[in-house]
Amino acid sequence: MLIDGQPADQIPLTDRGLQYGDGLFETIAIQDGRPCLWQRHMRRLQKGESALGFPPIDKELLWQEAHKLCTGRQQGVLKIVLTRGSGGRGYRPPDPCQPRRMLTTHPWPDYPQSWYDHGIVLRRCDTPISRQSRLAGIKHLNRLDQVLARAEWRDSAIVEGLMMDEMSNVISGTQSNIFLIKGDQLITPELSQAGIAGVVRELVLEFAGQYSLHPQVIKVGLDDLKQADALFITNSILGLCPVARFEDRQYDLSNIPSELVKFVENSYRADV
Amino acid sequence: MLIDGQPADQIPLTDRGLQYGDGLFETIAIQDGRPCLWQRHMRRLQKGESALGFPPIDKELLWQEAHKLCTGRQQGVLKIVLTRGSGGRGYRPPDPCQPRRMLTTHPWPDYPQSWYDHGIVLRRCDTPISRQSRLAGIKHLNRLDQVLARAEWRDSAIVEGLMMDEMSNVISGTQSNIFLIKGDQLITPELSQAGIAGVVRELVLEFAGQYSLHPQVIKVGLDDLKQADALFITNSILGLCPVARFEDRQYDLSNIPSELVKFVENSYRADV
Repeated sequence: MLIDGQPADQIPLTDRGLQYGDGLFETIAIQDGRPCLWQRHMRRLQKGESALGFPPIDKELLWQEAHKLCTGRQQGVLKIVLTRGSGGRGYRPPDPCQPRRMLTTHPWPDYPQSWYDHGIVLRRCDTPISRQSRLAGIKHLNRLDQVLARAEWRDSAIVEGLMMDEMSNVISGTQSNIFLIKGDQLITPELSQAGIAGVVRELVLEFAGQYSLHPQVIKVGLDDLKQADALFITNSILGLCPVARFEDRQYDLSNIPSELVKFVENSYRADV
Repeated sequence: MLIDGQPADQIPLTDRGLQYGDGLFETIAIQDGRPCLWQRHMRRLQKGESALGFPPIDKELLWQEAHKLCTGRQQGVLKIVLTRGSGGRGYRPPDPCQPRRMLTTHPWPDYPQSWYDHGIVLRRCDTPISRQSRLAGIKHLNRLDQVLARAEWRDSAIVEGLMMDEMSNVISGTQSNIFLIKGDQLITPELSQAGIAGVVRELVLEFAGQYSLHPQVIKVGLDDLKQADALFITNSILGLCPVARFEDRQYDLSNIPSELVKFVENSYRADV
C-alpha cells in the first residue's frame, strides 16, 4: 500500500473521501507485472478530476508508484483511490486542496473459467441507480447505490445484478457495463444520467466500429434485453463475460463474435 | 477524537466509508457540555442503519462516548461518523460486518447575529440533487451532490444554496432544510426521493402541528418559493435562520412567528 508515495495503511479521519465520498477510484488489472489499459484508466481519472474540480495529479508520478507495486506480480488487482484530501467540517471544498492518492494491490479474483465458457446468470436489482448528470460516467466514491444493489442477493450462482434508473432505463450491472447484440448491432446504454463509463466498455465500442458491428449507445429498456440475441458484461477485471441467462431468457453465446472476445484479451496485453 | 471508543485520528484504508461512502453521519450541536437533541439524532441514525442494513450499534455506548467528548465544552459541534467498517474489494457488504464509529468535536461556527436578525441570502444551485428513494431522508456519506453544489459560489455574502432535483422539485439547501410560510401554512418539501430529513425540520413540523400553522409536507416548486410570505432554513447547528432574499424576491421576516423561533431555541435546551 502506498499513500502519497509512502508505505502506509491508514488515512486521517479528516479525509474528504471518508467524510463525503469526495473522491475517485480506478480498479486496474495487473498482468505480467504491469497495470493494464493504463492510459484509458488515466483518461477516465482525468475526467473525474475535472468533474469534481480537483487539480490534476501528476500521472507520471502515479505511473511510477503503480509500477513499483505491480512489478513482480504475475496477476493481481491495483486499486487507486484519489480523494480531495483533508478538510474541515462542511461541504465546501478547501481551496486550494491537496488531493490524496492511495494505491493498493489485491489478489486476482480467479473467476471460474465456466463463466467465460458457458456464461453467467444475471438478475434484476430492485435498488434503482441514482440519476445525476454531473456525476454520470465518472468513477467516484459515492457508491451506496451499488452497495445496496449488491446486498440484494447471496446466491453465489448469480454473478451480477442489473441496475435500472427510476425511469426503468437499463444502466449497468452493479460492477460492470452491459452490452446487447441484436443482429449486426452492438448496443450499450447511454450513461449521460447514471452509471460508470467503463474502460473495457470504451474498448469494445471502438472495436465494434472497426468491425462488422454497428455500435449503438442509446437508451435501453428491459424489453431490449429480452429481445437481444446475446448479452455480455464488461469490467476491467472480468474483461468480457457472456451472460447465459437473465430471468426467463437464455442466450446463445455463439452470437458473441469470437473476434470481439479475442480483441479484448489482446488489448490487455498490448495496452491500447 | 474517538474511534471505537479509543483516542485515534486515523482509520484503515480498508474502511468502506472511504471506499464507497458506505456509512452515515450526524452533526450535533453541543451546548453547556451536552449534545443537543440527542434522541432525535439517534432516531435518524437508526433509520440510516436500517436503510443500509447495518447491525444497530449500542446507542448507550455512543451516548457515553459523546458525553465524554462534550463535557466541559460550552459550545461546539459533535460529529459522529458510522461506517460499515473494514472490508475487502467489491461492493458486497461483508457479512457479518463490524461498523466503525468515529466521534470528533469541532469549534462552534459563530454565525453572525445579523443572519438571525436580518436574514440570509439564498442562491439557486445548478447542481441537481440525485433522486434515489432508497437513500432519501437519511444522512449517509454519499455527499458529492452537496459538495459540487457548495463549490458553485465563493461570495461570502451568500450563505446557502438551494438544490432541486432534475424534475425541478425544490428539495433543500446544500446543508439545510427549507421551509415556506404562506398564510397559515407551513410548507416544506417532501423528501421521499431526495434530501435529508433534518432533526430541526422534524421539530419545526411537530411544533407547527400544535400551533396555529398547518404543516404541509408536499412537492415544492420555484414558484412556491417566489410566492411565499416568508422563507427560513434549518439545520442542527444553525437552528432556524430566516431568508431575507432569494433571487429577485425579498421576504418579510416578521411573517415568521416569533413563537416558532423561540420554540426551536428552547428545544435545544430541553432536548425534546
